[in-house]
Amino acid sequence: MSKWMRAWSTETVGPHNLKIAERRVPEVGDGEILVRTTAVSLNYRDKLVLETGMGLDLTFPFVPASDMSGMVEAVGKNVRRFKVGERVISTFAPGWLDGLRPGNGRTPSYVTLGGVLPGVMSEYVAFPEDWFVAAPISLDAAEASTLPCAGLTAWFALIEKGHLRAGDRVVVQGTGGVALFGLQIAKASGAEVIVTSGSEEKLERALALGAGHGINRLTEDWVERVYALTDDHGADHIFEIAGGTGLGQSLKAVAADGRISVIGVLEGFEISGPVAPLLLKSPVLQGISVGHRRALEDLVGAIDRAGLKPVIDKRYKFGEFREALAHLDRGPFGKVVIEF
Amino acid sequence: MSKWMRAWSTETVGPHNLKIAERRVPEVGDGEILVRTTAVSLNYRDKLVLETGMGLDLTFPFVPASDMSGMVEAVGKNVRRFKVGERVISTFAPGWLDGLRPGNGRTPSYVTLGGVLPGVMSEYVAFPEDWFVAAPISLDAAEASTLPCAGLTAWFALIEKGHLRAGDRVVVQGTGGVALFGLQIAKASGAEVIVTSGSEEKLERALALGAGHGINRLTEDWVERVYALTDDHGADHIFEIAGGTGLGQSLKAVAADGRISVIGVLEGFEISGPVAPLLLKSPVLQGISVGHRRALEDLVGAIDRAGLKPVIDKRYKFGEFREALAHLDRGPFGKVVIEF
Amino acid sequence: MSKWMRAWSTETVGPHNLKIAERRVPEVGDGEILVRTTAVSLNYRDKLVLETGMGLDLTFPFVPASDMSGMVEAVGKNVRRFKVGERVISTFAPGWLDGLRPGNGRTPSYVTLGGVLPGVMSEYVAFPEDWFVAAPISLDAAEASTLPCAGLTAWFALIEKGHLRAGDRVVVQGTGGVALFGLQIAKASGAEVIVTSGSEEKLERALALGAGHGINRLTEDWVERVYALTDDHGADHIFEIAGGTGLGQSLKAVAADGRISVIGVLEGFEISGPVAPLLLKSPVLQGISVGHRRALEDLVGAIDRAGLKPVIDKRYKFGEFREALAHLDRGPFGKVVIEF
Amino acid sequence: MSKWMRAWSTETVGPHNLKIAERRVPEVGDGEILVRTTAVSLNYRDKLVLETGMGLDLTFPFVPASDMSGMVEAVGKNVRRFKVGERVISTFAPGWLDGLRPGNGRTPSYVTLGGVLPGVMSEYVAFPEDWFVAAPISLDAAEASTLPCAGLTAWFALIEKGHLRAGDRVVVQGTGGVALFGLQIAKASGAEVIVTSGSEEKLERALALGAGHGINRLTEDWVERVYALTDDHGADHIFEIAGGTGLGQSLKAVAADGRISVIGVLEGFEISGPVAPLLLKSPVLQGISVGHRRALEDLVGAIDRAGLKPVIDKRYKFGEFREALAHLDRGPFGKVVIEF
Repeated sequence: MSKWMRAWSTETVGPHNLKIAERRVPEVGDGEILVRTTAVSLNYRDKLVLETGMGLDLTFPFVPASDMSGMVEAVGKNVRRFKVGERVISTFAPGWLDGLRPGNGRTPSYVTLGGVLPGVMSEYVAFPEDWFVAAPISLDAAEASTLPCAGLTAWFALIEKGHLRAGDRVVVQGTGGVALFGLQIAKASGAEVIVTSGSEEKLERALALGAGHGINRLTEDWVERVYALTDDHGADHIFEIAGGTGLGQSLKAVAADGRISVIGVLEGFEISGPVAPLLLKSPVLQGISVGHRRALEDLVGAIDRAGLKPVIDKRYKFGEFREALAHLDRGPFGKVVIEF
Repeated sequence: MSKWMRAWSTETVGPHNLKIAERRVPEVGDGEILVRTTAVSLNYRDKLVLETGMGLDLTFPFVPASDMSGMVEAVGKNVRRFKVGERVISTFAPGWLDGLRPGNGRTPSYVTLGGVLPGVMSEYVAFPEDWFVAAPISLDAAEASTLPCAGLTAWFALIEKGHLRAGDRVVVQGTGGVALFGLQIAKASGAEVIVTSGSEEKLERALALGAGHGINRLTEDWVERVYALTDDHGADHIFEIAGGTGLGQSLKAVAADGRISVIGVLEGFEISGPVAPLLLKSPVLQGISVGHRRALEDLVGAIDRAGLKPVIDKRYKFGEFREALAHLDRGPFGKVVIEF
Repeated sequence: MSKWMRAWSTETVGPHNLKIAERRVPEVGDGEILVRTTAVSLNYRDKLVLETGMGLDLTFPFVPASDMSGMVEAVGKNVRRFKVGERVISTFAPGWLDGLRPGNGRTPSYVTLGGVLPGVMSEYVAFPEDWFVAAPISLDAAEASTLPCAGLTAWFALIEKGHLRAGDRVVVQGTGGVALFGLQIAKASGAEVIVTSGSEEKLERALALGAGHGINRLTEDWVERVYALTDDHGADHIFEIAGGTGLGQSLKAVAADGRISVIGVLEGFEISGPVAPLLLKSPVLQGISVGHRRALEDLVGAIDRAGLKPVIDKRYKFGEFREALAHLDRGPFGKVVIEF
Repeated sequence: MSKWMRAWSTETVGPHNLKIAERRVPEVGDGEILVRTTAVSLNYRDKLVLETGMGLDLTFPFVPASDMSGMVEAVGKNVRRFKVGERVISTFAPGWLDGLRPGNGRTPSYVTLGGVLPGVMSEYVAFPEDWFVAAPISLDAAEASTLPCAGLTAWFALIEKGHLRAGDRVVVQGTGGVALFGLQIAKASGAEVIVTSGSEEKLERALALGAGHGINRLTEDWVERVYALTDDHGADHIFEIAGGTGLGQSLKAVAADGRISVIGVLEGFEISGPVAPLLLKSPVLQGISVGHRRALEDLVGAIDRAGLKPVIDKRYKFGEFREALAHLDRGPFGKVVIEF
């Protein structure tokens, strides 16, 4: 193994200073593993962190991005969970292993890779073994890299918190990375999925992925269409991408005793809606911000055993990081991944 | 039994036409029981129905109010659950026996006594036996009449949906009928209760009822006080009375993985709040609109076995119905009840 | 419609007196619907009731069987849920609509069709509308008739109580009617299904239905095979058919924090097993006895939206009721149905 | 601080070799804290480990016991959760922080203090900070030491898994350490508690602690008495101490949709019972083996906020360890504690 590696990094908030730096390959400490990065998947949040800092206490030089797959190249002392040669993926919020989230009400925890913790746009990383889980055996490196944030968010909303059941009617707003995971996980769980989008072409692709129905939210009243499609029952679960169609519409479209999962980036948005359907239908409304490591392990198992294939809109090369970031602004159909 | 009885009724929406009418005591049909009313408890909703109709398809002459206690005077054919001489209370939404609520997403069910169904401000009522449950043995008639709507709403939010646990920190907004039930049920379940109010005198009375802390929301920042009282943990459960302090404050004050129950009247309110704490703390936000009959039976059992005494601010006589309604506007401490 | 119909009935406990009787087509009472039977599905319980009475307070002449599909031929007064010409299926335990089961601990409720209530081996039945639910649109009459007991039992165990998730590893014991529903519902929910059987041929057919693995319990140690197949994880959910392989084996094979659903007939069996795995793995062990009407409606929705087809081993004609009963003793692969 | 300390230890399985040894006070490593032991609470398991080894891979010299309270005397590098001078209690199974238990189905995890990990009958221990939680502020050292195993087991069964509610009817078998915690936690949660015992004197003491009813299991049929006390409802939750009255009786006494928590030592016992009530009443039967750290933190909060005081039958001195162990065989009323 060479002693040198490349990493994308920046010295300041603001994306213009991003550049490829040469660095020494890190050494593994006690309880750490050295992982050779094989793919990194981007989230819109990565762009926000680079452009605004999101109010986080970043360390410079800052290496961006949180979601990676890789190969274990070396293990430190006292490492028990992994061996050299095994394939792993990162966890988005490493301190959250299972159960309740860390942090308190006053200061919610937001300790993530590519944020308060270092990022992964680097040919190697050396992190505590607890920050990783075994990669699914049925996915390639690029596909596996999409699970830690986008895949887990959808899984956590629909399965861990949402207890989705076969036959449930699920509305997924949009066709971005989290949304398509929502579509695929819901479909694999026996649900009927209704996708909304402003693009006929994307709706076609969503139908090909297993959606039962597509609604063009630009040309149709999606709430009315949901009622037409469900015989007035409404949606058992709405996958609300905050900042898209408002919560008010979701409160209208949700079934009695249904669930609305609010998913989204963390900048500048308010939720609002009428109180009458909230009272009379008594839906659960819950914000979802990724999930814990045990749920990521569950997702990996479901990927392998239920045969899910994440949707990658485009694969970029290591040197094309800026182009990949720019792609995020154009509304990808699924995920944007960088292969190393 | 006299063949004649008195009932408060009106021929039109608008409270000015309310008057006492003489009517024949109803006869019991198949599956029905005749109940002599011993007390009626008022809810703010009763005022709204009288004043605005609330958009409901009322039948005139309209007898108002939904919550009563009484004595079974006669039973119809095929009645199995009750015998003459037993004490009963009404159910607010008679069609909802257990589990999921009736109705669908497009047209949520709001079939209640003193609304689409007849009201109870009448010396006798003859209704299907399924519309009643046995009264608690430890309460007098006036106290028992407060359970069907106010008591059950608090129980459904905290216990049936909220799974409250000993040691939880609960914030109750205000000191109205539902709020004080929330305080008492939470306290009886081993929780620590923090009450907010604009009145020092009401806070004193809440402390005497078992609240651990009172916050004057006019002179203090209640969110900051909650954090001071909970060592930055926040509130595990917030009992949000819609239209009072905004949801935004509750989202700030709620603990990570906490719960906000939104309770309130059904007129004219919007909920709104910042999305960041909704995502980062992932609380459950749920509207609560009373509950099902099985939960009311559970509440009756808890009343008897845990020794709860509903708080009645003032007891009125049958002829004082107008005065009792007026009392609702002055912000009662607990319930307003009419004894027959 | 003819005024006369045929029904299988008996005057005594003991199957030998079963005969076809001519009876008048019943008239519909208030709240009742008249249903022309199109298919009846048999359960092993039907045999036990005929042969032993099962200690139930039967009414003679007794018409056996509980699970039917049919067509609404007439509706009584005050019927709201059905119209003439609609397809319906029966509910097994009509008094249980949703939520907690009726009855108390001392006298558990066992009020079912073809038991304390009349059976359905009759060309017409007139029952309260509340005893039926709408049939799935995607199944024929014979398939639809298999849902009320066998289908619902599997659904209730796996979904309503078991909260099965995609990726879960489910062990199904045997290939009878309930077991195959378990296999199909689990598979449609994204689970990996392992079927045990004493017959290689039945294992082949189970694999063709979507099972991931088959274990011959006569030639293999099924517990060891489960561990081999799950990398020592064990089974997240075991569908234990009481009286088959013992609970002790299931306690050995269950995963930590897993679930064992005990399903079975109600005669003469004890459960027993070692306490150590019960403590150290803390599985939930729950007996399942069919389920409520709302869950049956959920199952019907899942059938239509997830595309499940019940497995019918053999279809008999009305006159072949005795042959159909005899088939139950030979261990059918799926259900035995009588088409009218 | 002296460099020397005393610890009870043994070189072999078998209690006869227990003796007080002089050892060096341990030094704190990275992430560890040094804790001066102030009290140790004994469990019957401690006796079994000493007498039989329980099949565990013990390290000799072996220091017994798992449950302690103490004072932080020094902190190692990278310690974040505790400071010198803070009061702490140990966790029974240190690797289980929250959510699902560690280990798999084939090899359930049983990595506990005073077992595979070192014990606490020592004046000082140096363990990772993750193995401790903050002690409740309202308990003295002896009381606090009773929480890690006995207190948490009861809490985990009733609250974390059992979702106990005000008004529930709970049967607690016996008056040992776990049983009395069950009584107190249930009572503080608003439940009605029925205690069974073979001793009138212990029943009197249980009533004084808040039990609603006592049943002498030697002179009464406890199942019948439960039905008499609950108007045939049965017990919503039975706290079954394995090896005491059999599971079969609990299956008879449990309410429809009730819960039986099986708690007990891990030696030699079988559970068995009739399958009919398991099916017809569909209770949940779950083995409970202590619980995770987050639940222990919840219990500590409930102790402080709901005002629970653990029951200590007798306090011994450090030199009286053998006498304290002998006390366990005589069936203590609550806990046996050694004060340092």
